[in-house]
Amino acid sequence: MSLIVAKFGGTSLATPERVKDVAARLVEYHNQKHRVVAVVSAMGKSTDDLLKLALSINKRPPSRELDRLLATGEQASMAVLAMAIDALGVCSVSLSGRQAGIVTTSVFSKAQISEIHADRINEELDSGRIVVVAGFQGITPKGDITTLGRGGSDTTAVALAAGLKADICEIYSDVDGIYTADPRQVPRASKLKSITYEDMLELCASGSGVLQMRSVEVARNFNVVLHCRSAFSSDEGTYVREDQKSGEGESVEESIVTGIVADLSKVKVTLRGVPDRIGLAAELFTTIAEGGVMVDMIVQNISEFGTTDISFTVPESELPRLRPILDGAIEQLGAREYIIKEEMVKLSVVGAGMQSSPGIAAQMFRVLAEAGVNIDMIATSSIRISVVVGYDKVERVMQALHTAYGLDSSEDFTDTHLSAEELAAKLSKGR
Amino acid sequence: MSLIVAKFGGTSLATPERVKDVAARLVEYHNQKHRVVAVVSAMGKSTDDLLKLALSINKRPPSRELDRLLATGEQASMAVLAMAIDALGVCSVSLSGRQAGIVTTSVFSKAQISEIHADRINEELDSGRIVVVAGFQGITPKGDITTLGRGGSDTTAVALAAGLKADICEIYSDVDGIYTADPRQVPRASKLKSITYEDMLELCASGSGVLQMRSVEVARNFNVVLHCRSAFSSDEGTYVREDQKSGEGESVEESIVTGIVADLSKVKVTLRGVPDRIGLAAELFTTIAEGGVMVDMIVQNISEFGTTDISFTVPESELPRLRPILDGAIEQLGAREYIIKEEMVKLSVVGAGMQSSPGIAAQMFRVLAEAGVNIDMIATSSIRISVVVGYDKVERVMQALHTAYGLDSSEDFTDTHLSAEELAAKLSKGR
Repeated sequence: MSLIVAKFGGTSLATPERVKDVAARLVEYHNQKHRVVAVVSAMGKSTDDLLKLALSINKRPPSRELDRLLATGEQASMAVLAMAIDALGVCSVSLSGRQAGIVTTSVFSKAQISEIHADRINEELDSGRIVVVAGFQGITPKGDITTLGRGGSDTTAVALAAGLKADICEIYSDVDGIYTADPRQVPRASKLKSITYEDMLELCASGSGVLQMRSVEVARNFNVVLHCRSAFSSDEGTYVREDQKSGEGESVEESIVTGIVADLSKVKVTLRGVPDRIGLAAELFTTIAEGGVMVDMIVQNISEFGTTDISFTVPESELPRLRPILDGAIEQLGAREYIIKEEMVKLSVVGAGMQSSPGIAAQMFRVLAEAGVNIDMIATSSIRISVVVGYDKVERVMQALHTAYGLDSSEDFTDTHLSAEELAAKLSKGR
Repeated sequence: MSLIVAKFGGTSLATPERVKDVAARLVEYHNQKHRVVAVVSAMGKSTDDLLKLALSINKRPPSRELDRLLATGEQASMAVLAMAIDALGVCSVSLSGRQAGIVTTSVFSKAQISEIHADRINEELDSGRIVVVAGFQGITPKGDITTLGRGGSDTTAVALAAGLKADICEIYSDVDGIYTADPRQVPRASKLKSITYEDMLELCASGSGVLQMRSVEVARNFNVVLHCRSAFSSDEGTYVREDQKSGEGESVEESIVTGIVADLSKVKVTLRGVPDRIGLAAELFTTIAEGGVMVDMIVQNISEFGTTDISFTVPESELPRLRPILDGAIEQLGAREYIIKEEMVKLSVVGAGMQSSPGIAAQMFRVLAEAGVNIDMIATSSIRISVVVGYDKVERVMQALHTAYGLDSSEDFTDTHLSAEELAAKLSKGR
């Protein structure tokens, strides 16, 4: 008998039929004598619909009320799933974030889980029920409802798995695992049997939308084994766990590079002629952070004549908020000007193996050069190399890199191929 | 400075524009230095949509989960209204039934408010906020969410008004007041300036869907003045309060009869050849009540040869649940058979004045006889006469009664006239 935490994304719960399928899967676990906790996202696109409704009422809705509104999505879907389980003759109980004892910080819309009081969940499990918990939400110590940000249900699931000492945390979605690259971009991408927390974190940081980054951090910190798999099949997906070598030694897992990720919809900002003095970067990025803008890569170029250039990337969606901040910062810092370059992409090559393997970066730059792609920025960590390049040749470059690093699978996913526009829309949304 | 509790029905909140209108009205009260508590229903038809979703998943959804699901409707609408108020530059806070301190009995889907802990509401009012409370819901002492049944938001509003000692409880809906008869049935119906709690209770019991009956009971018990009015105009509606004589002496209010109500979609059930022994009626109606079926009128006819006939009415919607209960009851009680007569209507004439005014019942029966309508059942209270008749001539009879009792107004509402089918659909839903 093990304790299973299983998280289901919105697509897996989009229709009554799919809800029933999810219920059947949980009941099967229950009949196999497992203790089962399901964590649910809102059904289908309902979070987007609620968000649209809010914006039609108030262009800048107060975050407390927005969280309160969005949280209803998961509260509806948990009740519906509990009903579906009941229809199969198994007792079930739905618990909101509050009832599940999920206490968060008081930062509305980006709250972090601070404590879990799992008494009620354990009590319900002890009495033989399947417990369904609303993902994405918790309460502040004062009792107001908070949400955890996009993809927050993953974090709810992992945090509950950690708190309940679950044997496994299954993440069900419309994606059947973690791939060496997005199969829609790289037709010959291969599914990984397993991946380490570190590699998965780098993939998340590089723009892979399969798992919320915070959930992977929590999983690593509490050593929770994740299993990312499809809600629409019983095939195994990809395990995220400490030591991938303990898995079945597949060729893919022995590659130096684990995966390649393109993070579309980036904007590169360069501040030119910034006085080269100590503490200036701190000042600049503090101002930007206080404006609530998320900065991604930062690169500072060589200084000339006592001034320097600072470049960084932000998601395209942050641009409207960023411009007024930059207008002020230019003056405050005594910089000459700022330049914004839109339609940029961050390409990342990730793999724990590259720490001890020279030439990976060189190989990447060579592939890009051969494809005639100019590199705008470069940044590396010990297990990742990221470059920022123009948008136009992404797909060709992705495939070329994938082949160069020996990641191509024998299967071909060409039929799921999307246009660059569809891709961009899809990926920017997935974040 | 007074304390106003204002309740808004689903139609008043059906679109973003209407939500903004409601917000503007509340902000106006706020600017006039009133303390304002708004109580909201779910937006538009969302409760019906949620109910449909539940039934598509589970034909008999567990009531705890159903309540949890339905409660999300009001939780979404309260957040949206708070956002709309914020957009007008006034601070607002939305509170769920739990946060508003509304504690109920543990009977899911038909819970009754048992206590109100108004500390949080008072605190928020003291800090100058407009408080928006989710209607229709509360929590059990154990902390599970309950709902108060159809129209329960009225009761939330009145109970809050009582608990907060509000100066007035306004009930905003798509109806602009209480009429002597449904204007869709009786074109010359007149709007009442005021009505006593007792008359209003009889109107509710007779099938008027304007206010939830329980809310009127609570209003009477705590002497809360109600004002039923339209959300789409600033015209005065109808006051429900202790002494209608204190109002402006309008001719309508001096009538003996206050109003006429038709409660459509009734079914008459007759048990034939029931052994005439003590305790039998108790046994029968206990069995029916335990099956969760709401019985309306009950009449027992004269017994012949030691057996008797018992007739009662139930809403048509209860029939599927009632049949198996009757099959069992027939055997258990040793009755001969049961007969079901569908498409019946309960017509009621209500008015405190009739207590001291003979001949009102005779007049009613005369009008019916002249219209060629056969009376199936008769039941009376001191201020109400109800008859059950066949469905076909309702409208004509309604108008004839209205005229006979001198209730006709000079205005004519013929343009809002609906067909009998539309009427039936509308009224059965309104309950």
